Amino acid sequence: MQKTKGGTTGAGAHGGEAAPGTRERILETTARLLQRQGYEASGIKQIAREANATLGSVYHFFPGGKQALAAEAIRHSDREMTELLRESMASAEDPATAVVNCTRMLGEALRASGWTDGCPVTTTALEAVGRAPELERACAEALQNWQDVLHDTFRAGGIPEPDAGELALTVINTLEGAEMAAQLQRSEKPLQVAGRHLERLIRLYV
Amino acid sequence: MQKTKGGTTGAGAHGGEAAPGTRERILETTARLLQRQGYEASGIKQIAREANATLGSVYHFFPGGKQALAAEAIRHSDREMTELLRESMASAEDPATAVVNCTRMLGEALRASGWTDGCPVTTTALEAVGRAPELERACAEALQNWQDVLHDTFRAGGIPEPDAGELALTVINTLEGAEMAAQLQRSEKPLQVAGRHLERLIRLYV
Repeated sequence: MQKTKGGTTGAGAHGGEAAPGTRERILETTARLLQRQGYEASGIKQIAREANATLGSVYHFFPGGKQALAAEAIRHSDREMTELLRESMASAEDPATAVVNCTRMLGEALRASGWTDGCPVTTTALEAVGRAPELERACAEALQNWQDVLHDTFRAGGIPEPDAGELALTVINTLEGAEMAAQLQRSEKPLQVAGRHLERLIRLYV
Repeated sequence: MQKTKGGTTGAGAHGGEAAPGTRERILETTARLLQRQGYEASGIKQIAREANATLGSVYHFFPGGKQALAAEAIRHSDREMTELLRESMASAEDPATAVVNCTRMLGEALRASGWTDGCPVTTTALEAVGRAPELERACAEALQNWQDVLHDTFRAGGIPEPDAGELALTVINTLEGAEMAAQLQRSEKPLQVAGRHLERLIRLYV
């Protein structure tokens, strides 16, 4: 589950047919569209247009079609968010402060995007559940990876089992819900309030 | 914001063109499809077919088109969930126990539906945010109404302000995230764990 940012940047290795970077551009465009509008609203044509790629090159790099492309894009977002979470968690002296910093980071990013760039996985996960198995699996794995980062942080911060794992589960779920509320309210408040509550909760277990 | 279940059941008053109950059937079908597959995947044709109604009667009762129909369906789900939450909150002797009961109710309903019937609003809210203003507003109002029920319960249970309002915000957000996780994991565990954590959190404020 330890993935690196460089995992999908091997577009150049495909050579010839498309310029180096095309595969990466298609993936990043798809990831951004899934984050902003979800899976159902994101058609292959829009993806190709916004990635400045031909339809042919989309199908060349992603012969499995839209669901396979979306699943790969979710894995791309997963790696980025896992890395971001890991940095955020490592930057604080204790687990509770790390989570508060994380809510601040999410709120600032949300505000900076004009409240459009929420969780890169949630919308797609809810659309996929029970309906698009490969995509659903990629979404579930992403959430599990983020939970694992928190789980490691909590354990390293002295929280015993099974509390460390259970807290990681609830923290991720609370952040997901608070981020949606922040988007709907156009306000960082739900994330700030969640940060204060999670801080108090976590301190009960350290 | 205090709505009753009877608020939209006046289909008979429209008379003539469609049989009594058609409007209600279209609304309920739309609400169920929004809950199971979201807004983008739910077309007017599928709604008409599953509601056993003609396309003409859908447009007769909902001349504003798909977004207006979806917004009305969200308000329908909002009233049902508000009622359910109110009953669930009233059934316990204290706010923390009420929230635990609520997580149990949500988990049981989710399991009974084969993990398909999650929150009736979340998927649509995330699809609508920044893209379908009327629908987004209906979703934001639903979340606010549920938060208000909890806020009232917490205040009545002796939690002072602003804690009562802030706890209501975080509880709703945590339930939203935990319900999504429960769907993806096909397990009541995320809701059960959230219930235990929220119980401990709330008892800090009573």
